[in-house]
Amino acid sequence: MHTTANLQYTIATIGSHSALQILKGAKDEGFKTIAICKKGMEKPYRMFNVADEIILINSYNEFESVQEYLVEQNTILIPHGSFVAYLGEARIKALKPLYFGTKAVLDWESDREKQREWLLKAGLKLPMRFISPEDIDRPVIVKFHGAKGGMGYFLAKNKEDFYSKIGEHPDEKFTIQEYIVGVPVYIHYFYSPLTNELEIMGFDKRYESNVDSLGRISARDQIALPNVDPSYVVVGNIPIVIRESLLPKAIEMGESVVEVSKEICSPGLYGPFCLEGVLTPLQEFVIFEISARIVAGTNVYMRGSPYTALKYNKHVSNGRRIAMEIKFAIEQGKLNKITE
Amino acid sequence: MHTTANLQYTIATIGSHSALQILKGAKDEGFKTIAICKKGMEKPYRMFNVADEIILINSYNEFESVQEYLVEQNTILIPHGSFVAYLGEARIKALKPLYFGTKAVLDWESDREKQREWLLKAGLKLPMRFISPEDIDRPVIVKFHGAKGGMGYFLAKNKEDFYSKIGEHPDEKFTIQEYIVGVPVYIHYFYSPLTNELEIMGFDKRYESNVDSLGRISARDQIALPNVDPSYVVVGNIPIVIRESLLPKAIEMGESVVEVSKEICSPGLYGPFCLEGVLTPLQEFVIFEISARIVAGTNVYMRGSPYTALKYNKHVSNGRRIAMEIKFAIEQGKLNKITE
Amino acid sequence: MHTTANLQYTIATIGSHSALQILKGAKDEGFKTIAICKKGMEKPYRMFNVADEIILINSYNEFESVQEYLVEQNTILIPHGSFVAYLGEARIKALKPLYFGTKAVLDWESDREKQREWLLKAGLKLPMRFISPEDIDRPVIVKFHGAKGGMGYFLAKNKEDFYSKIGEHPDEKFTIQEYIVGVPVYIHYFYSPLTNELEIMGFDKRYESNVDSLGRISARDQIALPNVDPSYVVVGNIPIVIRESLLPKAIEMGESVVEVSKEICSPGLYGPFCLEGVLTPLQEFVIFEISARIVAGTNVYMRGSPYTALKYNKHVSNGRRIAMEIKFAIEQGKLNKITE
Repeated sequence: MHTTANLQYTIATIGSHSALQILKGAKDEGFKTIAICKKGMEKPYRMFNVADEIILINSYNEFESVQEYLVEQNTILIPHGSFVAYLGEARIKALKPLYFGTKAVLDWESDREKQREWLLKAGLKLPMRFISPEDIDRPVIVKFHGAKGGMGYFLAKNKEDFYSKIGEHPDEKFTIQEYIVGVPVYIHYFYSPLTNELEIMGFDKRYESNVDSLGRISARDQIALPNVDPSYVVVGNIPIVIRESLLPKAIEMGESVVEVSKEICSPGLYGPFCLEGVLTPLQEFVIFEISARIVAGTNVYMRGSPYTALKYNKHVSNGRRIAMEIKFAIEQGKLNKITE
Repeated sequence: MHTTANLQYTIATIGSHSALQILKGAKDEGFKTIAICKKGMEKPYRMFNVADEIILINSYNEFESVQEYLVEQNTILIPHGSFVAYLGEARIKALKPLYFGTKAVLDWESDREKQREWLLKAGLKLPMRFISPEDIDRPVIVKFHGAKGGMGYFLAKNKEDFYSKIGEHPDEKFTIQEYIVGVPVYIHYFYSPLTNELEIMGFDKRYESNVDSLGRISARDQIALPNVDPSYVVVGNIPIVIRESLLPKAIEMGESVVEVSKEICSPGLYGPFCLEGVLTPLQEFVIFEISARIVAGTNVYMRGSPYTALKYNKHVSNGRRIAMEIKFAIEQGKLNKITE
Repeated sequence: MHTTANLQYTIATIGSHSALQILKGAKDEGFKTIAICKKGMEKPYRMFNVADEIILINSYNEFESVQEYLVEQNTILIPHGSFVAYLGEARIKALKPLYFGTKAVLDWESDREKQREWLLKAGLKLPMRFISPEDIDRPVIVKFHGAKGGMGYFLAKNKEDFYSKIGEHPDEKFTIQEYIVGVPVYIHYFYSPLTNELEIMGFDKRYESNVDSLGRISARDQIALPNVDPSYVVVGNIPIVIRESLLPKAIEMGESVVEVSKEICSPGLYGPFCLEGVLTPLQEFVIFEISARIVAGTNVYMRGSPYTALKYNKHVSNGRRIAMEIKFAIEQGKLNKITE
């Protein structure tokens, strides 16, 4: 059924984030699969039988120790959010196995200033950012960087409010962003540099603890209780669709982001990516961030989404779509176009 | 595979709302498909390859200019929410191509008084409505008509509160409705006049900006911030199921609405329709509205719903169900029973 | 296609709760199916054509009157939440037809003290419980038992607040539980005693009236309106996925609960079960309850979940998974291992 060509390649990733669909999708397309797992994290990959081989490491610091073996297995590494977070840009750039994606995109994704430049150049609407608290002239959200991810964020209605609240966080780096009231929407895209086609793969919203259960506490109780401070820690995802009349705009944003990426970090962004923002009551997308690789929100569609079902007569997850792209590249002798 | 009969027909609709599933479903059942798109709105229909032909028009005012061609192509038009909104009742009644559905239902759907009469006659529980503000004796929601759709709605706890707030909206037409506290539920039905069978197709809840993110702002912040007013603009949908023990009631409501429609606008309502309301803590359905055609909430089930999976061993969206009905009618020589 | 073996058995359950997927799954695996319905509740089972036979009874008190017939039909009864609630432990223990599951688990599920003992023994993190109101030293939620299910629950920020509010409920039995702020998560498991394998089947969150629409009312309006008290009546369910890095912990909890059950009520818990709790901002599971049988939240996956799609190349609902287990047991001559 499968060409012998792709059976000669192995698809591998770190066991976390969206590895289940990446590995399952690869198996469905006829590849051998390897999950590299930190000890104690391997159970899901055994339970769902998605990995032909599981390699255990004691810590992500040891990842390079399995490189030679991966190269021998003719491995193509698929990066995901945790892959990038655990290894970091510098180590990723030095990896020896084939890597799906443009490594130069990592610089533009990880640096907040460069990412903002990219998105603005693509014509997207972003929330205002205030470099100096002195400039605050509207309600803002103050976000902390790094380890506190999702915790301690606060809203301030004006400059004075900001100063009265920031004192509780003396040692944190933060970003001050215009507070946009709208519903969160995460747009999943896939761009093929082989066919030059962009696809909408689906939409989700995050399930954040505790902010997504805050509304279940009555306003009276919220005010009475001492321990209810919002936090924004992503613990899951919920499937959504968006109004069909908003799809043309969503498509244009994706196309524009890809086009600009070709200029700023050739050959540019390809494979799965995600624009993360809100939809306002005026039906405008305001975008906060781009993830230049598969996002965990696509896990709600491990068996295909309402949108991939339109195009494909099989269950196409984002993970499987990656494997389909690699298989197609192998068949066309163009694997070098989508790996580094 | 497909009978030659249905290949002689074309299924067409306006490119918006739920056209993706309507066209995909038609293709799956062997029909030729046409999307009529306002220029700039065609990208989704190309991306997902659901239309054999895309006809571009400059504005929906030009729709009639393509009628002759549609008639030549032996076209059956499928109305959806935007189709009805863009063309309006009068123009729809004058259309020349075959039209799926009873046009007389449009009068009963579009007129709030007639719709209320219909639903009450069917024995449904509706929220109280106050014709005169003087009669307000409980908390109410005040909804504006027309262009402001979803914006500016407000709650008033009593008559005095109503008068103090209505002043901000001097020129708007409005409806005053009892405010029912319950969770929103949209029930998707399909009724076949050929088999006289009603089906539950699924359930969704709307994703409304900004009211569905309001709860993510702490009560303290909501009160502090100046710019947080609720609005109810539908930007997407979320899949839900309801308690299985509530299905008998949901089925009875659907049956009753169909039966009454046969009396008031013969041959009555058929095809997809939706009852829109809330489920209260007493597990009662309180219905606000009926949509007498396919609703956008069914887009969450473009690849079939948990309920259609029970009945069919294939992916049956509401769009595909329409095509199945038309195909069945053609095979039975009864196309005139489901088109006008 | 199907072995003659399983065609000799009938799978039956009470028409409610999750009977649609139980019966559909049984049919898909080649069994004859019977729905025992209270008169007036049978419509869904006819509509979706999942029951080869529907037996109507006037009240659940009459259930035993159909036992002899069920035994003649070589029936295996599948318990679900309403099955257990309608019949009760004592009557279930006296049933004559084959019953899927360990009846001794019922004692441990229904008794709050024993259930707590079980979960603590399995090493799960539970909210603190206050036997005496005098001990309240943090915010708590007060839950009422029995008929008021989901209604009247209230939060109290401290001991004084508790005493001031409890007066409104003079005759109710209640439980006082530490109030944990986190997002609700229901984990669906399936454990096979034949292969000794545990599976994650999926996740959902409940859709509760009115607490899940409370956040749609602005804080200002909540405080102004007289009639907005939270209630927690389950009227539906919403599909979610959780962060992939949380799966190992979810698996360990399930394994541990099964292991402990083998000690306390041999042969222990098997088939579908559910751990019900919240995920806190620290990404900890805090578990409130175990359901030792299929839960209604699995209805969101009547056509399979993102997780069952990883393991099976067909649509596997929890209902179908039960039928697959029974079929496997029959083929292996081990039906006595999974029925009583």
